[in-house]
Amino acid sequence: MKPISSEKQVPQPFRDGRRRGIPGRAPVARATAWVDALTLALPAEELGLIEAGGRVLAAPVVAPADVPARDRAADDGYALCAGETLGASDYNPLSFRIQEAGAAVGPHAAALVCAGERLPAGADAVLTFEAARLADSTLEVYRAVAPGAGVEQRSRCARAGDALLERATLLGPRHLALAATAGVERLQVFGRPRVRLIVAGPKAADAIDADGLMLRALVARDGGFVESLAAGGGSEICSAIVAPGADAILIAGRTGAGVDDEAPLALAEASELALHGVAMRPGESAGMGMAGGVPVFLLPGDPVGCLCAYEMFAGRWIRRLGGREPGLPYPVCEAGLRRKIVSNIGFVEFFPVRFAGEDVGPIGSAQSGGIASVARADGFVIVPAPSEGHPAGARVAVHLYGDGRRDRS
Amino acid sequence: MKPISSEKQVPQPFRDGRRRGIPGRAPVARATAWVDALTLALPAEELGLIEAGGRVLAAPVVAPADVPARDRAADDGYALCAGETLGASDYNPLSFRIQEAGAAVGPHAAALVCAGERLPAGADAVLTFEAARLADSTLEVYRAVAPGAGVEQRSRCARAGDALLERATLLGPRHLALAATAGVERLQVFGRPRVRLIVAGPKAADAIDADGLMLRALVARDGGFVESLAAGGGSEICSAIVAPGADAILIAGRTGAGVDDEAPLALAEASELALHGVAMRPGESAGMGMAGGVPVFLLPGDPVGCLCAYEMFAGRWIRRLGGREPGLPYPVCEAGLRRKIVSNIGFVEFFPVRFAGEDVGPIGSAQSGGIASVARADGFVIVPAPSEGHPAGARVAVHLYGDGRRDRS
Repeated sequence: MKPISSEKQVPQPFRDGRRRGIPGRAPVARATAWVDALTLALPAEELGLIEAGGRVLAAPVVAPADVPARDRAADDGYALCAGETLGASDYNPLSFRIQEAGAAVGPHAAALVCAGERLPAGADAVLTFEAARLADSTLEVYRAVAPGAGVEQRSRCARAGDALLERATLLGPRHLALAATAGVERLQVFGRPRVRLIVAGPKAADAIDADGLMLRALVARDGGFVESLAAGGGSEICSAIVAPGADAILIAGRTGAGVDDEAPLALAEASELALHGVAMRPGESAGMGMAGGVPVFLLPGDPVGCLCAYEMFAGRWIRRLGGREPGLPYPVCEAGLRRKIVSNIGFVEFFPVRFAGEDVGPIGSAQSGGIASVARADGFVIVPAPSEGHPAGARVAVHLYGDGRRDRS
Repeated sequence: MKPISSEKQVPQPFRDGRRRGIPGRAPVARATAWVDALTLALPAEELGLIEAGGRVLAAPVVAPADVPARDRAADDGYALCAGETLGASDYNPLSFRIQEAGAAVGPHAAALVCAGERLPAGADAVLTFEAARLADSTLEVYRAVAPGAGVEQRSRCARAGDALLERATLLGPRHLALAATAGVERLQVFGRPRVRLIVAGPKAADAIDADGLMLRALVARDGGFVESLAAGGGSEICSAIVAPGADAILIAGRTGAGVDDEAPLALAEASELALHGVAMRPGESAGMGMAGGVPVFLLPGDPVGCLCAYEMFAGRWIRRLGGREPGLPYPVCEAGLRRKIVSNIGFVEFFPVRFAGEDVGPIGSAQSGGIASVARADGFVIVPAPSEGHPAGARVAVHLYGDGRRDRS
């Protein structure tokens, strides 16, 4: 499919769906292509290592010097010249003179070293304590060692100029440790997308809380930052759309065809409603458009529809903007299906599933269990638009939540 | 293997390993059994939904009422009695009178409703706008609907008293949405383990930064809270061990057999060194013991050894204390091995691996690439103590980091 640029796209004349029905059902691929064609860039930031954890590298990290910068003792023990240990054994101990660590190790001499210390000149190996016995200032050596034994060679980790970490690395504990070890103190990372949330409905007060809470947690998971969270209807939507300072605007609720569904109209009047209605269930009243150069995502008020539309479109944008993989942020595994899944042709459909042993079973759909089923699920199966579903016993791809219950039963 | 309780265990007489070598190499299973036998409990906390995100439920969540509490419109449209639409078609439109939404729907009448609104009495279905046309105050209905169509039934999500979320659920966005939808405002969650970090060496200044940074990020990942972070040697270790206020004490560095390796001695003198030396590489100088009823973990100063010992022992305790799954917090997949892995019999060994297509290849070991290899890895392979390793082409279990590079190449 050809990507549709939001610039080049010819906007359809706005049709107010209220009391008439959502105006269309764009294919999911068209909606994701719209997201992928957006071209707002966030400036990179330079941060210290503590602050950089959980961010994404905007530039590769290069070793400023060899790591380590010189040969070091890898073990605690005695630094010496390996060649002089040749022939040493329990039956033939060889004697070495113990000398101070600071100076170069002389012939038939050994110096006490701690792991991590610089290897003294003249030494090319570190003998562990188990291989020798100290008597006064004479070391009896019982084992021969090869050159390099017990030594962490200069540049073992990296040479000066080596790429240590690739661009787009999501910085975890081990990456921070490497940067610190290499003496890199500041990192160039992607900025955090500023997200404006407007929770607009539906009217049931409980759903307002649910969508706001859920979206706040989803945005944080995806590396974004909730710049503001407001609740309200038409006038709040209108003012939120035009105010500067956000990289994404998310409006949850009032996206449908009811008399109170003011979000599509507000966006169309303020700027451009690119798309209203997606061939996807849950989430078919989702929409998107631009306002003041910032993408605005209309998310259904129903929590499950809101979740699906966030993950597929709004989250895709936030993840991409922050340098993350834009696709669904879940590992995928294959599993057998215990019971059939029946899906509507023409709609991408999401089915929450739960493991029972190695297989998964659907646990209700948006129609039957709502957010309770999704919360109890271990993951979900996506049935593409042309498919009627899957028979029992089919092998299906399962997107795994990875949180949730500790034990699968 | 029989679990070893820290209470029942007979402590071995302490042998100072300095200048002699680490006193033993306990099997990894013995060290994990020591962790699993610890019995310090953190009191549960009651938190609001925003604060509870990322925590673990200490008690199941039960629906206080039916969710939803009454039948609601699932779609925008017209609420009516489904039976009265029988026979309606494009060729046979049926006429309905439009009435106010507040009152019960009378015979051959329909009321405009928005998704999420309470279904008026007398109605059992919601007709979408596409299935009807409004002319003045008369609704022409073109399609028959079944009872329940467009209706979200009372208790569709849950009945009053139903278990909504199980104990030990790690609270993600969808769980918060369910709790909010069900009207649950506060949750009982496990407390956050308070972790004291002492970064004690080795002497190389870079490693001090590396271990502290890495451990801070690992503790946060595992739901813990770094109560304090100090750097220093023997006296700092001694005072950190005896001060109250921590649920776990982690000492990174000075765990080996060098003259500066004061951590095991400090723990033995202050209280009880249960174990020093584990048959594991990297990480073999790890140790553990109790001080004032709090477990103390000795982690090697080398960042890779520190990481392995944290993940296997200290992290296991922190995760368990906070209600999480105590095992390694990585998904596991199976993959083919491109090059052989050679491992020492008698040691559990960790090998960083990287994907190339569907297969993984080792990218150095602790001996050859250090933290640079670990940082570049997609995951790691664990070779058990009795094994010599795996030949090329073997199928191996890969623990996946899940962070790191966006693209596998």
